[in-house]
Amino acid sequence: MLSARMNLLVVGSTAFDTIETPHGTATRCLGGSSTYFALAARMFTSVRLVSVVGQDFPAEHRRLLESRGIDLEGLEQKAGKTFAWHGRYSADMNSRTTLDVQLNTFGDFQPKVPTSFRDSRFVFLANGSPQTQMSVLGQVDRAEFVVADTMDLWIERDRDGLGALLKRINGLIVNDQEVKQLTGESNLIKAGKAVLAMGPSLVIVKKGEHGCFVFSPYFHYALPAYPTEKVIDPTGAGDSFAGGFMGYLASCDSISLWNMKRAVAYGTVTASLTVEALGVERLAATDRATVERRYQDLLQFVQF
Amino acid sequence: MLSARMNLLVVGSTAFDTIETPHGTATRCLGGSSTYFALAARMFTSVRLVSVVGQDFPAEHRRLLESRGIDLEGLEQKAGKTFAWHGRYSADMNSRTTLDVQLNTFGDFQPKVPTSFRDSRFVFLANGSPQTQMSVLGQVDRAEFVVADTMDLWIERDRDGLGALLKRINGLIVNDQEVKQLTGESNLIKAGKAVLAMGPSLVIVKKGEHGCFVFSPYFHYALPAYPTEKVIDPTGAGDSFAGGFMGYLASCDSISLWNMKRAVAYGTVTASLTVEALGVERLAATDRATVERRYQDLLQFVQF
Repeated sequence: MLSARMNLLVVGSTAFDTIETPHGTATRCLGGSSTYFALAARMFTSVRLVSVVGQDFPAEHRRLLESRGIDLEGLEQKAGKTFAWHGRYSADMNSRTTLDVQLNTFGDFQPKVPTSFRDSRFVFLANGSPQTQMSVLGQVDRAEFVVADTMDLWIERDRDGLGALLKRINGLIVNDQEVKQLTGESNLIKAGKAVLAMGPSLVIVKKGEHGCFVFSPYFHYALPAYPTEKVIDPTGAGDSFAGGFMGYLASCDSISLWNMKRAVAYGTVTASLTVEALGVERLAATDRATVERRYQDLLQFVQF
Repeated sequence: MLSARMNLLVVGSTAFDTIETPHGTATRCLGGSSTYFALAARMFTSVRLVSVVGQDFPAEHRRLLESRGIDLEGLEQKAGKTFAWHGRYSADMNSRTTLDVQLNTFGDFQPKVPTSFRDSRFVFLANGSPQTQMSVLGQVDRAEFVVADTMDLWIERDRDGLGALLKRINGLIVNDQEVKQLTGESNLIKAGKAVLAMGPSLVIVKKGEHGCFVFSPYFHYALPAYPTEKVIDPTGAGDSFAGGFMGYLASCDSISLWNMKRAVAYGTVTASLTVEALGVERLAATDRATVERRYQDLLQFVQF
């Protein structure tokens, strides 16, 4: 099933999520950015995960990830508890409130990239402090394509660190609020171009139900979201998108314009599967054939 | 230039617009739904306009519309003043405040379709009371494809009238707030399908900078907005979209799925031209060749 050309490394959080939605509640289920990313990307290529958990992290979660072919050599287990998040979605699912965050072992996460992971060619730096993200770049030798996520917190608190990171990475994935905050531009096209001027040659702006917008010096590109009526739980949609995108791209012969466009479509489709169940349930259960069917649907959907 | 297959009738407002934007102000310039619609549609087919103005409506506005080939036999000039609107856009252009509305002669607008317009095959009912919109349907004999716009006011105040109208028309064009208000569904896909169940076989949901979503019993379809950095004045974008859509469709041999998809793309492109200058300036000055270039750009833009 895998047509992996290159190994894909993800560095990010692993968490226990408690998620309240109008459709139901999941308590202390497997979550975190690296988890969603890896479960998405594993459909396309081999994935190496660097993260941290506490002593309370159950063997069944580890088994689930391993059974999907994810290399957990970089999943550090430390004294203490696993990062825990508790959130609640609004009735229309368009906003969420964080009710509780216990950073626990993730609080002073110092990613340690195992020696066997140092040759990773594709690297995804999930949301974290620019300093933490930067520390990963010093631990990989042959990275060809590095993409990072970030959030409002780091744009506010460590603009300098983020600026330095942007000069070192190939791509940035952010949402529309974040790109406007980062650049001070309210027009999305101007904002996207302004990020390109900060360093990366690829900027993907996620717009939730409105799809995404892609900027590069060579092309602009936009896709609507895959049309699903079954939005059960949006948690992890962004990381699943990134996983589908990076996973597909890592499986390609080259990082061409068309492969990037297709990769964005795979990211879109992968995210649509994630939101159709609570937590990672649907994402962990899905397969490449399901993704391919939706990919063809999406192609039809935007063709004119 | 025109490849008109069928005549297209628009019934709506003609107005003096005073528009304040961060980019400048236009005072008492030509506006109104029928004006934007007609100036957009005239690039594709021959357009017949039914509206009302007061004694203060200057000959130069009439000349402008006529010089673009728009048939003004249905533009009634009554005692009194022309409908006048005054609005102000927010700094990020994403919201606007109405500062003043003088309905004047438009207040008791009773559309009178001239005898020579009764054979119109394509009809666009611009925003107005469902009762007014319905009265037009009794004055046309051979309508094949009728599309209506509406707004929150009518959804609130005359749901029954709107419901009756929906059973008589082929298509509805609304924005995302309106479709959710009309159906009580917060998921856009569910909302779109719920409108289909009310009668029309085509529902186009406009989402501003996020493009549009199209529902029919036979297909779903979405397009991002044309990527413009130059958003000077969004006034009339929706009516220009409708004009490009209906104008192109009226110029086609058949109302096929693919022609509808292409028509939505033409509407998208036409709206992008409108927003690039204050009032109708850019729309009135543009030509089919410019539209075709953007159409090709848009095709590239969403292809993967």
